[in-house]
Amino acid sequence: MTHPLKTDRTQVKRAPKRGQYDFETIAQILDEGLVCQVGFVVEGRPIVIPTAYGRIGDKVYIHGASASRMLKSLLTGIDVCFTVTLLDGLVLARSAYHHSMNYRSVVLFGKAENVMDGDEKMTALKAFTEHVVKGRWEEVRSPNPQELAATCVLALPITEASAKIRTGPPIDAEEDYELPVWAGVLPLTTEAGPVMTDPKMTSDVPIPNNVLKYRR
Amino acid sequence: MTHPLKTDRTQVKRAPKRGQYDFETIAQILDEGLVCQVGFVVEGRPIVIPTAYGRIGDKVYIHGASASRMLKSLLTGIDVCFTVTLLDGLVLARSAYHHSMNYRSVVLFGKAENVMDGDEKMTALKAFTEHVVKGRWEEVRSPNPQELAATCVLALPITEASAKIRTGPPIDAEEDYELPVWAGVLPLTTEAGPVMTDPKMTSDVPIPNNVLKYRR
Repeated sequence: MTHPLKTDRTQVKRAPKRGQYDFETIAQILDEGLVCQVGFVVEGRPIVIPTAYGRIGDKVYIHGASASRMLKSLLTGIDVCFTVTLLDGLVLARSAYHHSMNYRSVVLFGKAENVMDGDEKMTALKAFTEHVVKGRWEEVRSPNPQELAATCVLALPITEASAKIRTGPPIDAEEDYELPVWAGVLPLTTEAGPVMTDPKMTSDVPIPNNVLKYRR
Repeated sequence: MTHPLKTDRTQVKRAPKRGQYDFETIAQILDEGLVCQVGFVVEGRPIVIPTAYGRIGDKVYIHGASASRMLKSLLTGIDVCFTVTLLDGLVLARSAYHHSMNYRSVVLFGKAENVMDGDEKMTALKAFTEHVVKGRWEEVRSPNPQELAATCVLALPITEASAKIRTGPPIDAEEDYELPVWAGVLPLTTEAGPVMTDPKMTSDVPIPNNVLKYRR
């Protein structure tokens, strides 16, 4: 079986058993995350910036103010490393050395493209909003022409990517299993709530169900 | 008041009101996070890798297998951008445009130094373990000479750094406050548990309190 997303750059070097290259696995991790880290090079030095994102098919989108330093740099067509990391648990082994974490991460490489087409830009903005809370786009005021112009949207094709996943209990050195040390996994999850309604609400609008029953 | 950690590179450019440069604020965010993102440049292109870390005083430490690509690259004394991001909530505005997130993030710039001194290396390894679960170091088997040799520890001084923080309700356009759209904040927290004891436990060791009552 070939892995078109697997390249020399995306091949997982450390713990190669943890590497996965199928699109579905990568898309699932991207869809569950809320924040990505965008790495790029300015004057030979690395910059990493956390930001929101969305996915439509085989592209991820990031956005920001047209005036932002990150977007101005990325618009010049430079290389980007885009990562999303989901932390699933603390792996507590019998030795300090074998402590680890359960996680799912994605790394994408590529050159970001400026989305100039108005329709694609609006679709991407919808994807950002829907990525955060499904159904939210239909509930809120859509971007007006001024807001659209002030927003820069960049697309990064998912063509060179890998996922790295660790699951399961600690793996200790054989001779350590006899030690009287508790070992196991402490799962971590992201919990939402309680909802805080904006004190500036002027009318009595109920909290929508997609917010009230939010789960990630 | 001067901000020694604030430099041209760490000055927050977008939404400068959110920028903070005092050491205490930065240290608090670093101590709460579990995973950092390390950005560096290889052959002119950016690489961002999620990894564990620890802090002692005004240094952060990362580690990995001596054979790892990341650590080999960093050992050559190249520039690093180190970030930690804590997501505190979804900020749901009346317009799509004003949606945001509440977060606390730290960005550090610098050159990582290889920790050669055996005592500092052991102290850093203790910091990694204690960073994940306080009190764990005393409960587990310490690194032996082989494990110490196989582990590479890098130090990054906290000398050029900034924090960026957003809190509070959405800030909508003045004319949108009259819209019949629910707006507010959905707080997000990291929850731990239920604890999963390793099925390979050979003796009946109780779950330690620092794991059972874990809070981040």
